[in-house]
Formats: sequence, structure tokens, C-alpha cells
Amino acid sequence: MPEYKAPIRDIKFVMQELLDCDSHYKQLDYEDASLDMIDAIMGEAAKFTEQVVAPINQIGDQQGCTWIDGEVKTPDGFKEAYSQYVEGGWSTLAQSTKFGGQGLPHSLDSSIVELFSSANHSFAMYPGLSHGALATIEAHGSDLQKQMFLPKLVEGSWTGTMCLTESHCGTDLGMLRTKAEVNEDGSYSITGTKIFISAGEHDLSDNILHIVIARISGSPEGSKGISLFIVPKLSVTGEGELDAENGRNGVSCGSIEHKMGINANATCVINFDGAKGYLIGEQNRGLNCMFTFMNAARLGVANEGVAAAEASFQGALAYAQDRLQMRSLSGVKNPEGPADPIIVHPDVRRMLLTQKSIAEGGRALVAYLSQLVDVSHSEKDEAVKAVAESKLALLTPIAKAFLTELGLECTSHGVQILGGHGFIKEWGMEQLMRDTKISCLYEGTTGIQALDLLARKVLGSKGEILKPFAEEVTAFCLENIADADMVEFIKPIMKFSEQWQQLTQSIGLKAQGNRDEIGGASVDYLMYSGYLSLAYFWAKMAKVAQDKLASDSEDKAFYQAKIKTAQFYFQRILPRAHGHAACIEHGAGSMMALDADHFSF
Amino acid sequence: MPEYKAPIRDIKFVMQELLDCDSHYKQLDYEDASLDMIDAIMGEAAKFTEQVVAPINQIGDQQGCTWIDGEVKTPDGFKEAYSQYVEGGWSTLAQSTKFGGQGLPHSLDSSIVELFSSANHSFAMYPGLSHGALATIEAHGSDLQKQMFLPKLVEGSWTGTMCLTESHCGTDLGMLRTKAEVNEDGSYSITGTKIFISAGEHDLSDNILHIVIARISGSPEGSKGISLFIVPKLSVTGEGELDAENGRNGVSCGSIEHKMGINANATCVINFDGAKGYLIGEQNRGLNCMFTFMNAARLGVANEGVAAAEASFQGALAYAQDRLQMRSLSGVKNPEGPADPIIVHPDVRRMLLTQKSIAEGGRALVAYLSQLVDVSHSEKDEAVKAVAESKLALLTPIAKAFLTELGLECTSHGVQILGGHGFIKEWGMEQLMRDTKISCLYEGTTGIQALDLLARKVLGSKGEILKPFAEEVTAFCLENIADADMVEFIKPIMKFSEQWQQLTQSIGLKAQGNRDEIGGASVDYLMYSGYLSLAYFWAKMAKVAQDKLASDSEDKAFYQAKIKTAQFYFQRILPRAHGHAACIEHGAGSMMALDADHFSF
Repeated sequence: MPEYKAPIRDIKFVMQELLDCDSHYKQLDYEDASLDMIDAIMGEAAKFTEQVVAPINQIGDQQGCTWIDGEVKTPDGFKEAYSQYVEGGWSTLAQSTKFGGQGLPHSLDSSIVELFSSANHSFAMYPGLSHGALATIEAHGSDLQKQMFLPKLVEGSWTGTMCLTESHCGTDLGMLRTKAEVNEDGSYSITGTKIFISAGEHDLSDNILHIVIARISGSPEGSKGISLFIVPKLSVTGEGELDAENGRNGVSCGSIEHKMGINANATCVINFDGAKGYLIGEQNRGLNCMFTFMNAARLGVANEGVAAAEASFQGALAYAQDRLQMRSLSGVKNPEGPADPIIVHPDVRRMLLTQKSIAEGGRALVAYLSQLVDVSHSEKDEAVKAVAESKLALLTPIAKAFLTELGLECTSHGVQILGGHGFIKEWGMEQLMRDTKISCLYEGTTGIQALDLLARKVLGSKGEILKPFAEEVTAFCLENIADADMVEFIKPIMKFSEQWQQLTQSIGLKAQGNRDEIGGASVDYLMYSGYLSLAYFWAKMAKVAQDKLASDSEDKAFYQAKIKTAQFYFQRILPRAHGHAACIEHGAGSMMALDADHFSF
Repeated sequence: MPEYKAPIRDIKFVMQELLDCDSHYKQLDYEDASLDMIDAIMGEAAKFTEQVVAPINQIGDQQGCTWIDGEVKTPDGFKEAYSQYVEGGWSTLAQSTKFGGQGLPHSLDSSIVELFSSANHSFAMYPGLSHGALATIEAHGSDLQKQMFLPKLVEGSWTGTMCLTESHCGTDLGMLRTKAEVNEDGSYSITGTKIFISAGEHDLSDNILHIVIARISGSPEGSKGISLFIVPKLSVTGEGELDAENGRNGVSCGSIEHKMGINANATCVINFDGAKGYLIGEQNRGLNCMFTFMNAARLGVANEGVAAAEASFQGALAYAQDRLQMRSLSGVKNPEGPADPIIVHPDVRRMLLTQKSIAEGGRALVAYLSQLVDVSHSEKDEAVKAVAESKLALLTPIAKAFLTELGLECTSHGVQILGGHGFIKEWGMEQLMRDTKISCLYEGTTGIQALDLLARKVLGSKGEILKPFAEEVTAFCLENIADADMVEFIKPIMKFSEQWQQLTQSIGLKAQGNRDEIGGASVDYLMYSGYLSLAYFWAKMAKVAQDKLASDSEDKAFYQAKIKTAQFYFQRILPRAHGHAACIEHGAGSMMALDADHFSF
């Protein structure tokens, strides 16, 4: 199993040197987020994830969760690790001080979440789901609901879930069948069955709060009749304590799924049998309340893509430096040994550098977006906030789908670098690949992200949504075009940016004649946008590194490596965008021509 | 679990209509391979794989193999299915009549192997390994060895393995430590430990014949001192029967691996403890003997890529036609239902057509190569044979690596099309992805195939090896360039072919200055070659389909689907070659710049 080491140096580079988090936090009045405090927290997070969370990752995969008579047991060590998580206050970091949180910025929490996710994808999902429930209640719950549910959620002694999917509807939530009947006391009785509920039942916490979508009797069919409810597993008093008198609510776990990966996170069938639920927000406005939460969740999944690339890179790099096999094509590099370490071979380096450039580039993209979330939470100037939210809306589906698809590719390279050993469970590389595939699926598949990006956002705004980010990129290019060291980065960005605009316009034109052109272009468009966006962040990182080297700072090798990795990205990863552009230019005709009955004979 | 249906109509199209197997077999004097006979055999193979082999695929994955005190038990149903395999004579199809085989052509067998592999990757590997052992003994064994070992191997009552890898050497076989000491009777005592031995121990057959590489005492170090041995698990008499007197040979299974996939095929550690072995071929010429076998094995793995794409396509297609979710962007298609089947959505079609175009295009490529194997076995005209072998040498590493990488991608699409359900074991789609990853690793990883192609073959022959295939492609283009219906296929092939030559030359030039340029370009070059080669076969298939439609034949919908799938391939898959070309053009500089110690800080 690869030994996990939190990439603290690189996170520091991104947060402090690339994104100047110090000024950013001061601007937003996050007074406690001083550089010293951040260093201290990151150091503790590194220790906890390396020493407690990572070591139970493999046993978690092997044992999985077990379901007995409705109760779910998590693998050995998970309960203890989660207790330490709660005791360490990790759950409270970025939560409101009103409910017991530390009030630190979201972006700091996001950097820490990457560590948890790299160390143990399954474990990281338990608090991840809680944060989703928490954000939903905080944004849309009544004061009484907040008082009842938030303190324990913030503390982490209770956890949360999101109950959306039913067996016949995942993407198409308008088809849901779960019903809600109003009770005399204003609460609701919820009846129905939800599937694929991550962390739906387990032994880590004292109570589980399900955020459930359901249709209130008499509400319209389809997505306009969906309401959102809090349904606790165990009844809760108005003061936010367990209600011993009313005890267990009508919520039960019918079974857990056997899956490709994330075996240590229980994926549950949850049955609601007249369970008492509390309406959140307005009746029939449930989907809107969900969307608030969705973007944060999607950014969290993007972070999983980064985490997977990083974890796989670490395992593959250690092996490549150690494993002796064959001689270098360009002459013996390790004359004392029986062969050279495989890191001398160009194709092994191609795979390692792909992992490295995606992990580090993706980290920058996610950190940038997390700062935009900070702005959307705390900025007082509405115009500044609107610009940030526009960039966030544009880049979230790109980050979610692009970074998880690339994360999956990186874990596949990780297996490949180890050769046959990569395929053996013992080495831990194949687990990363199995665990990561879910990130391309949940919180909206890659295809759904692509439609959100192209149909709803880009074409839905007639391209307006592209402007703030495109202007930022253009400004950076103009600032640096005269810099001889930056030309190799700036020129391609300008060329691809121009093509991005052209592709957008040409899809928009075609779509006027045939809406299927949108779906036909969507994933290629998203991937194109992803390669270009990451190029921008790599260019910015190269610029920072060049400036540091010019100012004769320490850590020369680190900055040189940044520039070389940027060059690799521009020369060997970014060119893939050509293929996506050519696919888009061919249109959707060849996709739609075949009759649905003629795919097979 | 997806229900497997052998794609008989498409195989018939490839064998008979595209590759005119009737003339091909007549030319090579395969008198028994009449069209009627082929139809009958394919029909039986379809029945057997659909009804016996496919139904134990999922239970094989769930149960895996179990190791107890050196004995390996295969999952429920495997022993019975293998007995039926032997009784049905499936093992004997393409084997020499001298040893009990039916003497049918290799290419017919290859088409049947695809069915087994689609139905159950793990099961198909047991006879697959036997064929490797068999081919090696037949090509290099003495008459006595053939008499001792071939009849039972041909019959299938004994199985075989290939024992190459040791824990410290996989690719770099020159480092092997297994020793051979000559005995007084001319046999050898073999001592050492081999790992990753597929089908190394199991309960399917009466004996297991290990083909083992080892170094004879006093032989040179490195790859020039490797010899090849037959080492039976149970001793064998000169007449080819079990030798009850001498009983068990010094061969034991130390353990089996726990793997990402192919759980029903035992991957064994095999210990040789002074085991009696028989030298095959000349001393120290073991690697050369291995290479004979290697090409056949690699083509077999290419077939697994096709098989995986086909199996995943079948599962995803059935789901996409059935699953109702969302409405079509271009208007309601299923007004009676609550939503449209997801096959109406362009992005679902993109993934399905990717699977279909890789499965069907790959099938054509593998079938073409299998016919070249027939020629290399049976053609009497040495010049014709030499041309065939040149094409085979060029295209085998391409087919192996390109089709398995694309096969893996296709199984990932299969998971994606099912959304969350794809990640659940019950549906069988994720198993295909896990099983298929091994095909990118064994028999030489993708990186090794790419070096074999570019370094050893293309540049090693100063490009000569490209000529016979390039001439065939050019001839086809010139023949059809004037055909208006073919222009959309011919033009891109001509353009990409020209670029292929240019890329080859430019890599060759760069490599004169720096051999690392070869490794740096190799995988992109292989993938480029793969996209182009498959384009050629899709163009040929489109031509056949157009001719059939013009001659007013039956099965119109089938031929129209072929043309539409060819168009999809040219418009939405082939353009990926642009990205690979651009990567190659950037050279290896950015790969090699980073010091091995500066990948991480």
C-alpha cells in the first residue's frame, strides 16, 4: 500500500504564493485565518490523515461495511478514527460560530478535505455528506430547525445524508415517488424508498439526519412538485437533543450495495415508512434548495479527482524510483545496479508527469474555486460577489467532470506504472482506480455536468457566463505576452481561448437548428474547456515560479520543477484539446443517424 | 448481469463479406473450413458460450479461486464447464491433426476465442494459456517431447502455463534467477520461484505443463543465457501418460494473488524445487523460442480488448434502450412513457457508438491479423508469406496495446451509461472494467508494445516494415478515391497516412541525437497508428456495405448501420489522432527535463 504523505509544500505554494490567501482572507475579514494559524492547522491535518486516516484505507476496502438486520458496521478502525475526527474539531472548521463552528474560510477547509480524500476516499465521504446536509439546513432551514439540528451536525456527533435517488430515477428527479403527507403538528409523514444513499446508515455517529426530497400530496407532477425535508433517524427534541420518548423514527436501512469501490462507505437502500419529516424551505421549491447545495458538493467531488491523482502519483513515484528494470535507452544511469530504476524510461515519466500535472494543476483550480466560494459567502460588495459567482457557476461543472475523468486516468496510469503489481490488491494502486470511478458518476455524471455547462450555463446565458473568466485569462495573457520566458505558455492559451469562443459560437448556431447538437458537443466541449482552464492555472504557476527564481529565493529545485511540469502540461497534455475541437466541429450528425433499434443485429 | 449474445451476424460480415474467408481458406488448402462448416461451428460456439460459459462469469468473480495447502479450487461451475469444453472438442479446433487436432485454420479459432472472452474473461484464459504452451512445444520441442505432451494438451485434458516473471523481473527477463542443473539422463533440475502465473494451479485438468524460463548453470548472464523448459506438475511417461511411479514433480503452488479482476483465474506463485524439466530448443536460445509464441499471445490479448468492448456494449445498449430518464433535447420521443429511453440522448449515443465502433472495428483488425497468421502457417509461396509476416509484425503490438486501451475505455463508458447502477456489482458492468485492465498489462504492457513497435520494428527496420501495410492502404485509397460515397473516408486516411510517414521520419531524425526521443514518442505513436489502422478497416467495411446496398441485397438496415458507424468513427474517434500527433511533435524534452529526485517535495 502506498504510504500517504500530505503534499504540504505544494498546498502552501497554491494557497499562499499563487492565490495570496493572506490578502484574500484579510479582505473578507477572516481574521483567524492568519498564515501561522493555517500552517498549524495544515500540520495537524497532515499528521492526522497520514497517521490515522490513511492506515485504515486498505482494511476498509478489504472488509467493507456489513449489514445485519438494518444495522451497518463500518470496517475496523473507522469508528475510532471518526471519534478522533470529532474530538479534533475537524468537523467544525469552516462552520458558523453561531452553531459551534470555528468560522474559518471554506477554502482552508477544502485544502484539508483533499488530504482526507487522498488518504481514504471512503472515510472522507462520511463528513463530506454531513457538510452537504448542514449547508442545506443553514441556507434554507427555519430558526427552529437550525437550533434542533445544526449544533450536533457541526460538532460531528450527528452525521447527515442526501436522499435523492430512487430506483427508477437518478438524473430525472421529477419522476420521484416518495410521498409526504402533512401531519396535524405541521410536520410531515414521509413514505418511500431511496437508493444509493452514501453514509445512509453506519455506526460512527449518535444520529443520522436525512435530507430527503419527496412530493407532498396534491403537489404538481414533475420537478415543480418536489419538496425538501429533514428526516432524522432518531427523533429529536426542540432543543436539539435525542428524543428518548419518541425514539426511533420510521427510517430503516433495507440493505447495502456491493460495489466496484468505496467499500468502506455504506451505500444504502433507505426505507421511509411514515417517518416524521420537517419541511425545509417552501413547499414545491425543493429542487431550488438542492441546487444551492449541489455546487458545493460538485466542487467537493472535483477535489476527489485531485486527491486520487495525488495519491496514485505518490504510490507510482515511490515504485518508479525504486524498481530496477531495463537500461535507459540513452545510456546506463545506475551502473552499480543490475538495471536502472524505471523512472529513467520516458514513457514511465510521461505517466508520472501526467499524474503530477493533473494533481498540481487541479489543486490550483480547486483552490481558486474555493476562494470564489469564500467570496460568495463573505464579500460585501455585490458586484465583486456577482463576478465571483459567475466564474464559480462556469467552472464548477468543468472542475467536477474534467478533474474526475482525469483523476480516473491518473489512477489507471498508477496501476500501469507498477505493471502486474499494480493489478494486485496488496499494492493499493488498483483500489485507487476502483474508488475513483464513483467520482465520475455521483453528484451528476460527466454527461450531466457537460449539459449543465453547455446547455444551461453557456448557451443559456448566450455566452455571457464565459466573459468574466475569459476576461481574467485575457488580462493575464496581455500582462505577460512581452515576457520572453512566458511566451511558450501565453501563445497557446491565446490560441486555444480564441478557438474556445469560436467553438461556443458555432455550437450555438448549430443548436438553433437542432437542439441535439448541444448534447452531441457537450462532453467534448467540457473537456476542451478543462484542458484550457488548467493551462491557464499552469501558466500562472509558472509565472510565480519564475518570479521566485528571479528574486533568488530558496527552494530553487521546487520552482524549477514547477516550470518543467508546466512545460510538460503545455507540450504533452494540452494538445489533446485539438482532438476534442475536431470532434465538436464534426457535429452531432453521426451520433444521431442510427435508429435506436439498429445498434445491434 | 448483462446477458451475452454472440455477435454472429457481425462475425459473419467480417469473416465472409469483408475478408472473404472462403477464398482465403481455399487458397491455403483448409478444405474442411467450408462456409457450412464455419456456420455450424459458430452456431455451436454461440450456444456454448451463451448458455454455459457466460452464466458462470459473475459467480466466478464473486467466489474467486481458493488456495488451500497448495491446491487451488476454481469457482462453482468452472470444472463442469471446462469438462464440456474438452468434450465439445473446442480445444482441438485449430490444432494439428497429427496430435489429435481438427486442423482448422487459426483465424476461425480466433473468432471463437472472442466469444469465450466476452462471455467470461477468466474462463477463456485457461485454454488460452494451454494454447501458448502448445504452440511453443509444437514449434521448438523434440519429437519425443511432442509425443509426450501434445496429445493431452491438444485434447485439453492437460493444460499449460507460461512461467516467465519473477518477483524482481517482469519486463527485464535477463535478470531471472531460476536455475537449471543438468541431470544424468539429460533432463534438468529446475529451482526457483515464478510469480503471476495465470492458471498456474487449478482443478480443471489432470495435469499442468509449465513452460519455464531458467538459466542453465554456466550460461551467460543476461538475456543471452536463458533457456526454455517443459516442467510437468505430475510426471509423464515417454508415451505421454501420467507416470504413477514417479508421481508428483517438484512443483508447488505457494499462494494465489488477490487482484483487481479476473478473480476466477488463479494467478499463482509457483515454486520449482529441483523439479524435473525438459529443455525445449537449444540451450540459451530460450528467449527466441518465447518470441515465436509471444506474437500469438499478444494477438490473443488484442482479441480480449475487442471482447471487452463488445460485452460492455451489449450490457450498456440493453440498459440504454430500456431505462427511461429525461426527455430528448430535440423533442419528446416516447410520449406514452414518463420519460424517454436514454438512448435518445446524444452523449449516451456517443458512448455507445464508441463501444460499437471499437468492438466492430477491432474485430475486423483482429480477424485480418488472424488471416495473416493462417498465411504464415500454411502459405507455400515464401514471398507472399514474408509480406504477411511483415504486416503481422507491424500490426500485432498496435492491435494489442491500442485495442486493450480502447477496450478499457469502452468498459468505463459501459459503467458510465448505467450511471450509479454501473458501479454496483450486481449489474456486471464494473466487473468488465476490472477484468479488462489486466489486458493492458500482461503479455507486455502498453509501454512495452509501443517500444516493440517503434524502436525494434519501425526504426529498427529504418521504416521498411511500414511499407507492405502502407502500400495496401494506399492501393485501397487509390481504388476508391473516385467514388463519391467513399471520399469522406478516403481523404482523411490519405491525410493521416501522410502524417504517419512524416511523424515516423521526424522521430527517427530526433532519435539519432537522443534515443530517449523514441521512448518519449512511443505510446503516442502507437495510439496514432491504431486510430489510423482502424480507420482503414472501417473504410473497407463501409465499402463492402455500400456495395451490398447497391446490389440490393437483404439486411439493408445492417449495412446502413455499418456505414453510419464508420461515419461516427471518422468524425468522432479518428480526430483524437490530432492530439497524439501534436504530442509527438513536441518531442521528449519536457519528459526528460525533471531530475528523478525532483518529482516531489
